[in-house]
Amino acid sequence: MTREIRLNAFDMNCVGHIQQGLWTHPRDQSHRYRELHYWTDYARRLEAGLFDGIFLADIVGVNDVYGASPAAALKGAVQVPVNDPMLLVPAMAAVTEHLSFGITANLTYEQPYLFARRMSTLDHLTGGRIGWNIVTGYLESAARAIGMQALAAHDDRYDLADEYMQVVYKLWEGSWADDAVRADKAAGLYADPSRVRKIRHDGKQYQLDAIHLSEPSAQRTPVLYQAGSSTRGRQFAADHAECVFVNGQKVESVRDIVDDIRARAVSAGRRKDDIKVFVGATIVTGRTQKEALEKFEDYRAHASSQSALVHAAASLGIDFSAFDLDEPIETGKTSAITSNVEAMSRSAGPRWTKRKLLEQMVLGSRQPPMVGTAEEIADRLADWMEKADVDGFNLSRTVVPECFDDVIDLVIPILQERGRFKTQYRPGTLREKLFGTPRLAESHGGTRVRF
Amino acid sequence: MTREIRLNAFDMNCVGHIQQGLWTHPRDQSHRYRELHYWTDYARRLEAGLFDGIFLADIVGVNDVYGASPAAALKGAVQVPVNDPMLLVPAMAAVTEHLSFGITANLTYEQPYLFARRMSTLDHLTGGRIGWNIVTGYLESAARAIGMQALAAHDDRYDLADEYMQVVYKLWEGSWADDAVRADKAAGLYADPSRVRKIRHDGKQYQLDAIHLSEPSAQRTPVLYQAGSSTRGRQFAADHAECVFVNGQKVESVRDIVDDIRARAVSAGRRKDDIKVFVGATIVTGRTQKEALEKFEDYRAHASSQSALVHAAASLGIDFSAFDLDEPIETGKTSAITSNVEAMSRSAGPRWTKRKLLEQMVLGSRQPPMVGTAEEIADRLADWMEKADVDGFNLSRTVVPECFDDVIDLVIPILQERGRFKTQYRPGTLREKLFGTPRLAESHGGTRVRF
Repeated sequence: MTREIRLNAFDMNCVGHIQQGLWTHPRDQSHRYRELHYWTDYARRLEAGLFDGIFLADIVGVNDVYGASPAAALKGAVQVPVNDPMLLVPAMAAVTEHLSFGITANLTYEQPYLFARRMSTLDHLTGGRIGWNIVTGYLESAARAIGMQALAAHDDRYDLADEYMQVVYKLWEGSWADDAVRADKAAGLYADPSRVRKIRHDGKQYQLDAIHLSEPSAQRTPVLYQAGSSTRGRQFAADHAECVFVNGQKVESVRDIVDDIRARAVSAGRRKDDIKVFVGATIVTGRTQKEALEKFEDYRAHASSQSALVHAAASLGIDFSAFDLDEPIETGKTSAITSNVEAMSRSAGPRWTKRKLLEQMVLGSRQPPMVGTAEEIADRLADWMEKADVDGFNLSRTVVPECFDDVIDLVIPILQERGRFKTQYRPGTLREKLFGTPRLAESHGGTRVRF
Repeated sequence: MTREIRLNAFDMNCVGHIQQGLWTHPRDQSHRYRELHYWTDYARRLEAGLFDGIFLADIVGVNDVYGASPAAALKGAVQVPVNDPMLLVPAMAAVTEHLSFGITANLTYEQPYLFARRMSTLDHLTGGRIGWNIVTGYLESAARAIGMQALAAHDDRYDLADEYMQVVYKLWEGSWADDAVRADKAAGLYADPSRVRKIRHDGKQYQLDAIHLSEPSAQRTPVLYQAGSSTRGRQFAADHAECVFVNGQKVESVRDIVDDIRARAVSAGRRKDDIKVFVGATIVTGRTQKEALEKFEDYRAHASSQSALVHAAASLGIDFSAFDLDEPIETGKTSAITSNVEAMSRSAGPRWTKRKLLEQMVLGSRQPPMVGTAEEIADRLADWMEKADVDGFNLSRTVVPECFDDVIDLVIPILQERGRFKTQYRPGTLREKLFGTPRLAESHGGTRVRF
């Protein structure tokens, strides 16, 4: 069979996520992000529509590169205010059975012992539907908020991340044997102490001497997502990730990244398809092409290129407020984030300006939307799958919840007709749904510390 | 009117909490703590019965003083395994409207910037039903798990806690003005940047230079609980707490603590009744005295004094495995936690032995249960209220959920008849239900940093 298309809703516990400005659309409900029932309704809707999961982004800090101030981000709700993503999961899990939850958490700021317990708790409560999107952060404002003097250098963050992963693997995989919990009421024996061991770690950044506080959950290690596309980030993905989230405007450049990550995984002793790749995408569709285009124009009228620039300033590390519209953007002028700027130059061309950038941001984001009938969208998704060798899409929201209703009502039925989308959920945990097995693959490095 | 009695269920995200061994009772359901629906059913039940809240304990570490090993705690499920308490709240909140949630979190190990956002997120999602039980921890095993060389000295932990509170007050009360959020779709203005300010803190333990990531929630600062009964702990309570949780076997000794805390609060410029006091209690009741006594004997047959000793060893800091049954317990012999041992000596007498201690632990805990008909229980609760000057009770579980059903079906109706228990919930947030106002009282020190 042709490869099945997997779809996640890509969202964040805030008002403005990727498509900036669309919160101002009269039908958009994202300002209700503080209400529990907004999220439980959302989860029910996604599960009824057979979405694979919801993938929740996060930032610890503010998009304050533009004008060296948080003002523009606050005005436009550009990922601020932003609440904790993890706390949405228990409520959404309580009203669903199969929907999975990919949670972004920045390991730089999370104490590994407590973080490991949080993820284990979520894995227990959801019956194994948890994924962790491992990030190391890129915002100076976050480092200052945490009380660090400055953000660690990019590659150092990944070295720290490697060590962090060793610690959490030990906690998740190495502290409790599979048969440690007996829960024997008659014998008064809950756990067999000979089957639980302290894990010890004496590293450069972390020291630990403790048993994991949680008993084994269905997946133990949550499904590991990663989204860094720098060279060092790809190596980290090849070593640790089970799912990779790639963003890119051109099929060819995404394909290059995917090929490289898969090749690195093979070098690390894993199989090419031990890694599932998700591409960020934005869909605007309708019952007819006319309806799709009208909807796009309506959305576009509410999008904010200015807010998109504020967002881009933070992710690229370039203060665009310092440039005139047609002034060539010299990245030497600011503390640019090199890997992101390289990607930008690839898509915008070597001599790019603020005007060019703004022109690209048609829907409040650098991500170009796919606009068309359900058939056209289905064609384009299939095209991406084949040409970029990817496994699915993280669909960013435009006007919620109607943007997901459109995908569910219009696009998914076409994909199902074509045999490219499931007609019911597979049983089991997230990892079973993705890879057919509840636990980390034997070829994954995290298994080396198993009890 | 005579003071209304407030009741919280006192629980923990684990199998064995206070009354050790009762998880082995055939009807006890606490082994289901990993299931989301266990907790959502529990919350619905408590709210239907008009309980004020659920108070969730936590430890970050293991009760491993007994035998200098976690073995005994693991065997008897003495607070291990233990999952994160905070992650239960969103699911329970989604199925209730009024029930409040007191969450224990150890500030020593929680990064204040991220912790403040977690609590704000919960306050948003629950519509202002969140309390925080501030603890500083007493387990060496927790310090080792976190990678600290050793636990900080008792009073130093409170100094650190004072500074921590200053940081979180600034984030909760001082970063966003009440009118900062405009959410004006027509104007495209989400927040007014002139009404949001960076908070700065440059202290001994914490440095911060950031805006709070969350917009103002209903309560802003969660309702502050505290449970330390040492002299330094009482001072901390008088400075910060809105609710105090006291444990004690004798009315007189609890009264002494309560009087002292209220007097200290007055010295700190607050009012005597700015602090609500909850006493830990255990209830075993039935339709008749005979039924109550039979139930008690049945429960008792499943309780574990041995596991109670394992728990007591950790909270007192005395390895009881090193003592013979009738050997006088010399606390000089071990690294005893002085304030707890003082309390112990008050109740057990100066020359106490392991045998005496075990005899006191009739229901798997040092806390003596109240056993009797609903009328007798109601009398004893009222007696405690008057004689110890307290406001309510944290009821620890025996056999769940029937122990709470008994209180709801039998005791609460009697209290209602006597005009001592509400017949419906008051509207509003937890703080409104307790104090009639959604925000910290003006006399509370946390208000000094308001925007």
